Amino acid sequence: MEEINVGILGCGIVGTGVARLLMEKQKLLESRIGAVIKLKYVADIDTKKDRGIQFQEGVLISDALKVIADPEIDIIVELIGGQEIARDLTIKALENGKHVVTANKSLLASFGNELVKTARENQVDLAFEASCGGCMPVVKTLRESLVGNRIKSMTGIFNGTCNYILTKMSNDKLSFNDALEQAKEKGFAEADPCLDLEGMDSAHKLAILISLAYGMEINLGEIHVEGITKISPMDIEFAKEFGYAIKLLAISKNNSTNIEARVHPAMIPFSNPLSHVDHSMNAVIIDGDATGPTMLYGYGAGMMPTASAVVSDISDIARNIIVGTKRRVPILGCPESNIKIIPILPVKEIHTCYYVRFAAADQPGVLSKISGILGDFGISIKIVHQKGKRSNGYVPIVMITHLAKEEHAQKALQDISSLGTIMDDPVVIRIEEDRKE
Amino acid sequence: MEEINVGILGCGIVGTGVARLLMEKQKLLESRIGAVIKLKYVADIDTKKDRGIQFQEGVLISDALKVIADPEIDIIVELIGGQEIARDLTIKALENGKHVVTANKSLLASFGNELVKTARENQVDLAFEASCGGCMPVVKTLRESLVGNRIKSMTGIFNGTCNYILTKMSNDKLSFNDALEQAKEKGFAEADPCLDLEGMDSAHKLAILISLAYGMEINLGEIHVEGITKISPMDIEFAKEFGYAIKLLAISKNNSTNIEARVHPAMIPFSNPLSHVDHSMNAVIIDGDATGPTMLYGYGAGMMPTASAVVSDISDIARNIIVGTKRRVPILGCPESNIKIIPILPVKEIHTCYYVRFAAADQPGVLSKISGILGDFGISIKIVHQKGKRSNGYVPIVMITHLAKEEHAQKALQDISSLGTIMDDPVVIRIEEDRKE
Repeated sequence: MEEINVGILGCGIVGTGVARLLMEKQKLLESRIGAVIKLKYVADIDTKKDRGIQFQEGVLISDALKVIADPEIDIIVELIGGQEIARDLTIKALENGKHVVTANKSLLASFGNELVKTARENQVDLAFEASCGGCMPVVKTLRESLVGNRIKSMTGIFNGTCNYILTKMSNDKLSFNDALEQAKEKGFAEADPCLDLEGMDSAHKLAILISLAYGMEINLGEIHVEGITKISPMDIEFAKEFGYAIKLLAISKNNSTNIEARVHPAMIPFSNPLSHVDHSMNAVIIDGDATGPTMLYGYGAGMMPTASAVVSDISDIARNIIVGTKRRVPILGCPESNIKIIPILPVKEIHTCYYVRFAAADQPGVLSKISGILGDFGISIKIVHQKGKRSNGYVPIVMITHLAKEEHAQKALQDISSLGTIMDDPVVIRIEEDRKE
Repeated sequence: MEEINVGILGCGIVGTGVARLLMEKQKLLESRIGAVIKLKYVADIDTKKDRGIQFQEGVLISDALKVIADPEIDIIVELIGGQEIARDLTIKALENGKHVVTANKSLLASFGNELVKTARENQVDLAFEASCGGCMPVVKTLRESLVGNRIKSMTGIFNGTCNYILTKMSNDKLSFNDALEQAKEKGFAEADPCLDLEGMDSAHKLAILISLAYGMEINLGEIHVEGITKISPMDIEFAKEFGYAIKLLAISKNNSTNIEARVHPAMIPFSNPLSHVDHSMNAVIIDGDATGPTMLYGYGAGMMPTASAVVSDISDIARNIIVGTKRRVPILGCPESNIKIIPILPVKEIHTCYYVRFAAADQPGVLSKISGILGDFGISIKIVHQKGKRSNGYVPIVMITHLAKEEHAQKALQDISSLGTIMDDPVVIRIEEDRKE
């Protein structure tokens, strides 16, 4: 039986999971693929740590360059994480004619175009199912299953840490900080969770996915990103009363003349299946013009779910090797010569509905002034409630607007803030209504 | 640019959708695949009917054999439906060296093993993403994305007609017959909806999917099948009070020593995402031992969603042809030499929890007799309620059991029925509890 040799770079949590899966499932993989996937090397600086697996003599080594240079190795699996070292080693591996599998969204979001170019020049594959949405097959679905669709929109929950925190805040009425502490205790949040909480992790994934969906170069810089640190239990409660859940969403829309791509907390109606995606689960609704809305749901992180996605990429490449081919599916979903540079619509140009909460002085005429300013900017109010208790002479006023242009909404809110009768800045959360079929 | 020639057999709803997609999306498909997918022929007995598309001269013909015999045709798309003619033409196409794409679950469930053998003998591909779950990429997910997983279980809502009827019964408290009428009016139910309502359509899909998941020959005959015709609004209401939705489920479980595969209505807790899959939507939760539960959700039928899945298969084969290969992914998920004959556990051997509703004589001691009989068979009661109104001296008694063996439950219910104090047969609905992680 043919042997496909694999070398893993980086034996942290995911690296350990991939090694475990390749070793424990060797027979299963053989029976499904018809070849032996052999784990020849695992390179990590720390070769002493107990990872709970028994590597054969000589498999676990400290020299990543030896793995990349080995002529027997067919597939390099980059699981180092981070940017600089991962980038250098990935480029070297591609230049050495190795196919590369990576789970590194940060690497791809920042250097993906360069890696795609290097892979093309060296006529090898670059696979990254595990970089977006863990075990959900979102990369394969976009590149293969939805090939006959214009992708109208994608709406995803791609960060388990944020989703866990928002679920805890909603279900147990915890503050953001208490929910974050729980997430840390349960191992759902890193010691430094900024990349998650501030939305950048979701943005990395969105940058990769819009590239696949729209045949465009990876463009992280133009994605608007907001995190969940300003969400309060009060807003979650008000949202529920209006029939909405609050989720950190990665959103893209393919308007006829431009692409929207943004990450921010948003209210979604309970009729939207994403509103029921709780705890650390991930999900994405992809709306194709032929399929209509279709959803993938699963663990977006964790040792074995991520390892499963990495192993699916390894197997894809192995199946190519067995039939004597490579680069069968273009890395970004269409041949590189067809990849375009597409600008992302600036967020001030988008149109959406808004939830706004003011702490307004409890005196006559305040609401009239607020609605007057909104009206001046062409923003009409769908619902307005005086909700909650008076505190220090201020009462919470909560409103939901009809569709408005972001730029107008922001300007109106600045004017309202400077009225003098509003305490602090208003809380603003965008609302993503279900699309009409 | 390379040209891949496609011939469609059968221009009904799905055939028309595939033709439309290939014609309207020709440029998009070219840009993604790097080849021209050319619709050379569409064969249908009726070449006069207005299908809302303008075929080029000579494309729409009545002679299916001419399409199969044409040496230029690379891919035959079988969309005739039914069994005999579809089988004959598919076998002929495979024997002529054509790759075949089909959406025909009934054909595959009954003659799949023969077709797989014929495809192997002629070294061509047989693809059928559209046969299971419409646009949900469940075939690709099982064969490719989950390749490193032992599939512990699959639980699916695969029939849009039944799901629409159950949703209407639940949301609008309609009777089964009224809900069926509405489904017919909306075009969700066929004039003769037996294949849907009696569960056979779901069983066809389950037969295909367990073959892919467990590397076994297609085995429709041993799948236990029950439909939804006996579900009443009363049971749906009682289920809600206990925290359950009623859905027609296709269920498979990979126990260590055997495979369960069955289609029947079941109660699932509202914490299960499938409980929120409403109207004509389909969904499946696949529980892999590495991934944990992962769900696919989307339209399981309809012209364009099904066409999208067919086009994804065509594109997969086209991408093979471009790189000069074929039969890259084994048809049933592992090479044919590794496919096993695996028996399905008889339903009387399964263990599950039960919801049971009796109309019991409103007299002392009845409940004691019922629970005594259950106890004799080792079945313990988790909840028992006297629910609803007395009618003709009988009151509804509703109970939920702990885990019990089906055989014991059936025997106990027979004994209870013959007590003389029970009106009619008891209503029995299996309960699928969430698995503990």
